[in-house]
Amino acid sequence: MNTANGNFEITENLDSLTYGFLGLGLMGGSFAKAIRTEIFTNENSQGKILASDCRIQTLEEAKKDGIIDEYFSVENTKEMLKQCDVVFICLYPKATLEFIKNNIQFFKENSIVTDISGVKTELIESLPLGLQGLNEKTTAQFIPGHPMAGSEKEGYLHSSNKIFNNRNYILMPYPHTKEENIKILKSIIYKIGFTNIITTDYKTHDHKIAFTSQLCHIIASALVESAEDTEITQFGGGSFEDLTRIAMINAPLWTELFLANKTELLSHIESFEKSLNRIKLQIENSEEKNLQENLELVRSKRILMVENQGK
Amino acid sequence: MNTANGNFEITENLDSLTYGFLGLGLMGGSFAKAIRTEIFTNENSQGKILASDCRIQTLEEAKKDGIIDEYFSVENTKEMLKQCDVVFICLYPKATLEFIKNNIQFFKENSIVTDISGVKTELIESLPLGLQGLNEKTTAQFIPGHPMAGSEKEGYLHSSNKIFNNRNYILMPYPHTKEENIKILKSIIYKIGFTNIITTDYKTHDHKIAFTSQLCHIIASALVESAEDTEITQFGGGSFEDLTRIAMINAPLWTELFLANKTELLSHIESFEKSLNRIKLQIENSEEKNLQENLELVRSKRILMVENQGK
Repeated sequence: MNTANGNFEITENLDSLTYGFLGLGLMGGSFAKAIRTEIFTNENSQGKILASDCRIQTLEEAKKDGIIDEYFSVENTKEMLKQCDVVFICLYPKATLEFIKNNIQFFKENSIVTDISGVKTELIESLPLGLQGLNEKTTAQFIPGHPMAGSEKEGYLHSSNKIFNNRNYILMPYPHTKEENIKILKSIIYKIGFTNIITTDYKTHDHKIAFTSQLCHIIASALVESAEDTEITQFGGGSFEDLTRIAMINAPLWTELFLANKTELLSHIESFEKSLNRIKLQIENSEEKNLQENLELVRSKRILMVENQGK
Repeated sequence: MNTANGNFEITENLDSLTYGFLGLGLMGGSFAKAIRTEIFTNENSQGKILASDCRIQTLEEAKKDGIIDEYFSVENTKEMLKQCDVVFICLYPKATLEFIKNNIQFFKENSIVTDISGVKTELIESLPLGLQGLNEKTTAQFIPGHPMAGSEKEGYLHSSNKIFNNRNYILMPYPHTKEENIKILKSIIYKIGFTNIITTDYKTHDHKIAFTSQLCHIIASALVESAEDTEITQFGGGSFEDLTRIAMINAPLWTELFLANKTELLSHIESFEKSLNRIKLQIENSEEKNLQENLELVRSKRILMVENQGK
């Protein structure tokens, strides 16, 4: 696992590239907006931002907002792909796989293709060319990615160029991915606000993300489910609110993510259940000293996590 | 359960009262600071802010800051109490009970005494005069309170007049508490930033708080405990961070709170475990439809909670 940081040398002329978006929802929209404001800072930029989405109204709106230069219906996506130097596939996991499978031959020569899917094993192992990426049928290279940012609100309407600020990004290049392509993608990522890029393999990604992201969404959901009524927030002091904000969940998306990463996720749920049960027993048996020692350890561990966050 | 709101008529001349603090840590310090900036707005205020704490250095600092007018060592607390119209006991639960028991005869005639203890049953049922408050040995009245605000940071150093803004406050007056006393206390509470005061009984309080506050702290702690390593935050996208901020827990305080509210807390932990197990089984059995429906319900329930929050 490598962590890149501010010493990274950003590729120049990122505004001469043409960017294409498949899906212009919360994430696609936020990427497009951030590229528009952070990369296309020069009025004479040669590059373009293109987008395709099944919601034509969204595309029209994004064009009116000056975020995208041109848009394409889903039927004409290949017309878009042949112009794009960098393609962001901002679709749900299964749709991402379908899209790559069906469009592999339409990507522009030597282009960079990336995605934002929150689970990778199924996607990567199902891709026609497996671990090698796209390079048998095309010179385009697929670099799996996962921006660790989002919102409980959905759609282009809630997209924003600010949601990436100070966030983590996980990249999973293949062994044969060109260094130059990784450098360009990292440059874009840093430019639009992310401060920490982690390079790892897709198995590690799925294992870690099952904990930091999926398990947390499940806990938040279970906590809301277990609430006796919806007026409990009258008694809230911030803790319940912070723990359950992510329970305002995009149900179809997270159902896909949970099921696609089932094995990893179930193992993390079980570890969590064990820890919870341990604290429960300490309370049940009034083990004051053990409970307090346990909480002291938890506190120290969490403080260390904050310190390690920025490394 | 009654919820008061902005239509409440604030008592005048709150700055002519003398306020006393037992304990000038995060909470006591924040109350004193907020009363100083929000109530003592007039240079000619007749009232005073007094404090007693075992940490003389803290008291000196607060005096130097212009937050308190005068301070008293723990041995001289009764000298302070006889001057105070309103006393805030900002100690841990057990210490709160001890303090009231030992000082009941020293409170000023007709004064208002309140506390901030996060669990009430044990405290209220152990008080010498039980449900009637303090009114056999004294004309002072005890009104149990619980400000739903705080911070994962401790001590006077981290206290702030801002932490109460837009927060909930729970008050548990006795049947015989004078309306005028409740009105004065509520006026102070609104003045220093709280926007929602709930009046309820101590049993309801302990039941609800076990869910919104204590259960959340236990979940956060179990989640941190179950983390494989302290570098996991490199893979964080905000969810894990939001769910576990409160795991930077004040271990002695929360050990007391958990054990003092054991029965309520254990019942909420068990409900949560059931909800978690239900989601776990849906994932394990790949029950896509049920899982998605479950998450949709959770989402709707959490959205309703936000709507009910401000009511």
